[in-house]
Amino acid sequence: MVHAALAEVAANRCFGGWHRRYRHRSATLNCEMVFAVYLPPQAASGSVPALYWLSGLTCSDENFMQKAGAMRVAAELGIALIAPDTSPRGADVPGDPDGAWDFAHGAGFYLNATQPPWAAHYQMHDYVVHELPALIEASLPIDSRRGISGHSMGGHGALVCALRNPGRYRSLSALAPICHAIASPWGEKAFARYLGADRAAWRVWDACELIAGAEERLPLLVDQGEADGFLVEQLQPERLRQACAAVGHPLQLRLQPGYDHSYYFIASFIDDHLRHHAAALTA
Amino acid sequence: MVHAALAEVAANRCFGGWHRRYRHRSATLNCEMVFAVYLPPQAASGSVPALYWLSGLTCSDENFMQKAGAMRVAAELGIALIAPDTSPRGADVPGDPDGAWDFAHGAGFYLNATQPPWAAHYQMHDYVVHELPALIEASLPIDSRRGISGHSMGGHGALVCALRNPGRYRSLSALAPICHAIASPWGEKAFARYLGADRAAWRVWDACELIAGAEERLPLLVDQGEADGFLVEQLQPERLRQACAAVGHPLQLRLQPGYDHSYYFIASFIDDHLRHHAAALTA
Repeated sequence: MVHAALAEVAANRCFGGWHRRYRHRSATLNCEMVFAVYLPPQAASGSVPALYWLSGLTCSDENFMQKAGAMRVAAELGIALIAPDTSPRGADVPGDPDGAWDFAHGAGFYLNATQPPWAAHYQMHDYVVHELPALIEASLPIDSRRGISGHSMGGHGALVCALRNPGRYRSLSALAPICHAIASPWGEKAFARYLGADRAAWRVWDACELIAGAEERLPLLVDQGEADGFLVEQLQPERLRQACAAVGHPLQLRLQPGYDHSYYFIASFIDDHLRHHAAALTA
Repeated sequence: MVHAALAEVAANRCFGGWHRRYRHRSATLNCEMVFAVYLPPQAASGSVPALYWLSGLTCSDENFMQKAGAMRVAAELGIALIAPDTSPRGADVPGDPDGAWDFAHGAGFYLNATQPPWAAHYQMHDYVVHELPALIEASLPIDSRRGISGHSMGGHGALVCALRNPGRYRSLSALAPICHAIASPWGEKAFARYLGADRAAWRVWDACELIAGAEERLPLLVDQGEADGFLVEQLQPERLRQACAAVGHPLQLRLQPGYDHSYYFIASFIDDHLRHHAAALTA
C-alpha cells in the first residue's frame, strides 16, 4: 500500500526486489522532490530495516542506485536502500548565482540553512532525518530500524545526521566523507552562504566538532581511497581520526591504496558497509 | 607495457584491479575511438582471458562498466572485461539525418556497412572481431581466450560475431538480445540503410539465420526479462528458441518474470553470465 502522497515515477525489478523512484511534495523543502528506494525481496512479506544513503556533490537519487552495485547484497541481507536527492530542486529553488556545481542545486550539504534566500528551501537535514523517514515508514514496508551512510558531501551528511540525533540511527558509516567541513573549501563556501558569516554557528554541522560532544558512540566504519584527489584539502580523514581518538569514539578508518573518489571506489567496498549496517539493523 | 597507439583517458582502481579507458585511432572505422577495459587483479602477474561486452543502442563504453556491477565477479574469476563503443564516433562520421537514437551514432549494429555514406566508417563487426582484439592482445596483459556477450543490439552483435567466426570465441551469451534483427523494426531500419534494400544481403547479419548453418555450436545462455517493453516487437526470443531447436543448437533461454530492459535487469543476472564464460575461458 503506497501512500497517496507518493507518485511512482519508475519501477525496475532488481535482484528479486524492486528499485522504485517516487515524487512527492516536501513541506520541509517547500518543493517537489524525487527519491529512490530499493526494496529487497524480504519486503514482500514484512517490513524491513533501511539504510539511508546520502550522495555527494552533483548527484541525484540515481547515482547510487545505478553505480554502487549495492542491491545484490541488500537483497541477500534483507535491508532496504533509500537514496534521497542532494538538495531541493526546481525552478523556484534558488541556485548558485555563478552556476557552480559545489553549491545550491545538487549541493545541499544536509544542513538547515538560516540565511536568505537559502533558508526557504535548503533544509536538507530535517528532510533527511525527519520528513522523509516519516513518509517512507508510513507508506512502504520499511520500519524504523535505520542506518545511515554516504559519500563525500553525503558522508559528511551521514555523520552529522547521526551525531546530531542520538537514538535515531542504529548504524553509521561513510565513504570518503568530508570529515571537517568547516575547515574545507567546499564546506566554507557552502556554510558561509547557508549559515552566514559567524563561524560559531557552523560548528553544529561539522562531524569532527560533533564527535567531541556526542551522546552516543555508534561504531564508525570509514573507507577512504589514498589516490583520492580531494583527500588532503577537502576530506581530511586524519582530522576525524584525531577527533575520535580524543574522546574514544570507535572508528575503523580504512585507507585503501590506489583508490580514487569515484563510484568504482564505492562499488569496491559497499558490500562491507552493507554488512556493517546489517549487523546492527537486523540484530 | 601499453602500446603506443593507446592513449589512456581514465584509470580507476576497482575491486583490486583497474578500470581503464583508452583512446586510439581505428583504421577499420576511420576515426578515433574510446574503449574501456577492466583488468582483474590477476592481470598484474600474467595474461588473462577476456569477455567482450557489446552494449545496446545509445550506449558508449561507459554504461556497462558503470552500471552492470560486473567487476566484482570478474575480479574473483580473473577475467578481463572489454567494452567497445557502439558505433564509430566524431564530427566526420555521418549520423542519422533525423537525429534519431536508433541509427548511426550509438547504433552501429556490429555489422559492416556496404552502402554510402555509411560504409566509410560503419564497420563495427571488423572492429570488434579483429582490430580491437589485435590491439588489446598486443598492448595489455590479455590473451586470445575470448568470450563475447552483450545486451539488446549488443546481444545481437555478440551472437552474430560469434556465429560468423567459428573458433574465435570460446563462450557466448546474451541478455535481452535482438534475436531476429531482419524481422525487427530496429533491425529493418538499420539494415536497409547500412546494407541496402536487398534483404538477401541482410541474412548474414541475423542471429536466427546464422544459427541454422553454424559450423560451431557454442552453448548459448540467454536471459530475457518478461516485462521488457521491447520483447515482442524487437527482441523475439521465441524465434531464437525455434532456430536453435531446429538444428539442435544448445540454448539455455531463461525468461525472468518482472524484469525489464534496464541495467537493473543486467546487474541482476550478469554474475551468471560471467561464470558461464569463465567456465569456458579458464578451462
